[in-house]
Amino acid sequence: MKAPVVEFSDWLAERAQHVGLVLARALPSEDVAPASLHQAMRYSVLGGGKRVRAALVFAAAQACGPAISSQQLAQQSLAQDYAAAAVELVHAYSLVHDDLPCMDDDVLRRGRPTVHVQYNEATALLAGDALQPLAFDLLAQMPLSPELIIQAIRDLARAAGSLGMAGGQAIDLDSVGKTLTQQALQQMHMLKTGALLGASVALGGLAGGGSAWQREALENYSAAIGLAFQVIDDVLDVTADSAVLGKTVGKDAAANKPTYVTLMGLEQARTFAGGLHQRALAALAPLGEASHRLAELADFIVLRDH
Amino acid sequence: MKAPVVEFSDWLAERAQHVGLVLARALPSEDVAPASLHQAMRYSVLGGGKRVRAALVFAAAQACGPAISSQQLAQQSLAQDYAAAAVELVHAYSLVHDDLPCMDDDVLRRGRPTVHVQYNEATALLAGDALQPLAFDLLAQMPLSPELIIQAIRDLARAAGSLGMAGGQAIDLDSVGKTLTQQALQQMHMLKTGALLGASVALGGLAGGGSAWQREALENYSAAIGLAFQVIDDVLDVTADSAVLGKTVGKDAAANKPTYVTLMGLEQARTFAGGLHQRALAALAPLGEASHRLAELADFIVLRDH
Repeated sequence: MKAPVVEFSDWLAERAQHVGLVLARALPSEDVAPASLHQAMRYSVLGGGKRVRAALVFAAAQACGPAISSQQLAQQSLAQDYAAAAVELVHAYSLVHDDLPCMDDDVLRRGRPTVHVQYNEATALLAGDALQPLAFDLLAQMPLSPELIIQAIRDLARAAGSLGMAGGQAIDLDSVGKTLTQQALQQMHMLKTGALLGASVALGGLAGGGSAWQREALENYSAAIGLAFQVIDDVLDVTADSAVLGKTVGKDAAANKPTYVTLMGLEQARTFAGGLHQRALAALAPLGEASHRLAELADFIVLRDH
Repeated sequence: MKAPVVEFSDWLAERAQHVGLVLARALPSEDVAPASLHQAMRYSVLGGGKRVRAALVFAAAQACGPAISSQQLAQQSLAQDYAAAAVELVHAYSLVHDDLPCMDDDVLRRGRPTVHVQYNEATALLAGDALQPLAFDLLAQMPLSPELIIQAIRDLARAAGSLGMAGGQAIDLDSVGKTLTQQALQQMHMLKTGALLGASVALGGLAGGGSAWQREALENYSAAIGLAFQVIDDVLDVTADSAVLGKTVGKDAAANKPTYVTLMGLEQARTFAGGLHQRALAALAPLGEASHRLAELADFIVLRDH
């Protein structure tokens, strides 16, 4: 008998709730000194969000096929939990620092005051600083072979560093008021957003015991959705309203930042995202039915309205 | 024939220069995009400094005895280089963030403009953010057994996180204008400064192939010098002059921060540091002559005038 089909939205909500519990256990308690720092860390990480990166970890692991024993199942499941929590910690830290006055100066995030507004700038800075090593510590505790753990740590380190997410942020800053070519804009987004989405998929492949060809298929998938994600973000910055988006809209346009919409216009940006969507689905073909959650995530990323 | 004795100051200068070369190779080139970020990273890391943490890595490795083969010697030597560079990267990132306006708001560091003055706040923030994952990536590349690499990564992650350096900074911020007990002040410094000094010694023990008892002796040593380092820093904040110290003096007193000097007075703070010095030397006894650089580093930390 086949397992009952769980709707994508229910699956996504369940996975988000699940990784929320993993994160709540992994983060130091608010009672532990320094209490204000731990409060700010928990506030920034446990404030909800779609947990797309965690979902990518779980879906990528699933795409590599079922575990072959109950012991392996238990170990892979725990490894996925830690990997999913690790990418969410890095994402959360990047949002905290990105919202700071010297960066995007945002006061609203997921409908709540940003961390430096709720606490203060110094605490927000330190909370972000402290979330990053916690992510590496979680990866180091995955019940995988030490070789795979080290691979996962290197993947995340590169995705977070100056040739990944932090580098993309720096190019973004430098680009304010400039006209970028599509190639330069794409390079920026591959680093700023694509690197961590790609690491999420790659870590899922490692935690799910993926073979070399499976992990290669995953890489082709994540290259496409990483870019699609940002194109859609740019579209939503223009078309969504603040209440739905949970953050201030029109910020990029107001800040005179180049976006896919300013570069190619709204309709063509949507068409471009549609092409990337198809490329992502095609990359999943060799993985077969096991990759259906990744296909649904690609749909979700491109068709979302917030 | 015994090897000629190298004076401590020459050894320290040579090791500082050596780790500087390792760091210069490990950091992305200024020509690689994003160029401004990589310039800021190199500016912050390659601007000199005493490299005490790197020296602790090398000295702790040496204290675990000589390598037993030329192959082991080459591997341990490379592992030490990466470990020394990693702790210096974490130290450099902490200084960049610590100097930011929302933290200590310092404009001078090692006699040069601080990173946010030389570049801008956002670049300084991102440079610090990007230095941290580079440190973990270097540890992941040490030619040691995967188990030891993972141990080293966990040691550094804890030393950098909310229960280590970042936590100490947070307690420090919260303590401005307050009177702390000696116990609370000690707790703060154990985290703020002691954690990373301790990780430096621990990583040296791992990279040098130290046995369990050797690493325990190293831990006792670093507990004592971690605290001594901060007591002396507090003394120097009062007694040194800016030109020698290379940074603004009297900042702590001006900021109404509790220090060992405000808590116990200048003379008693010096006596306290002297006691910690003796404790550090006693901890080295089981390691014998191989630990003489660690002994000299303890002397250096306590007797330095800047």
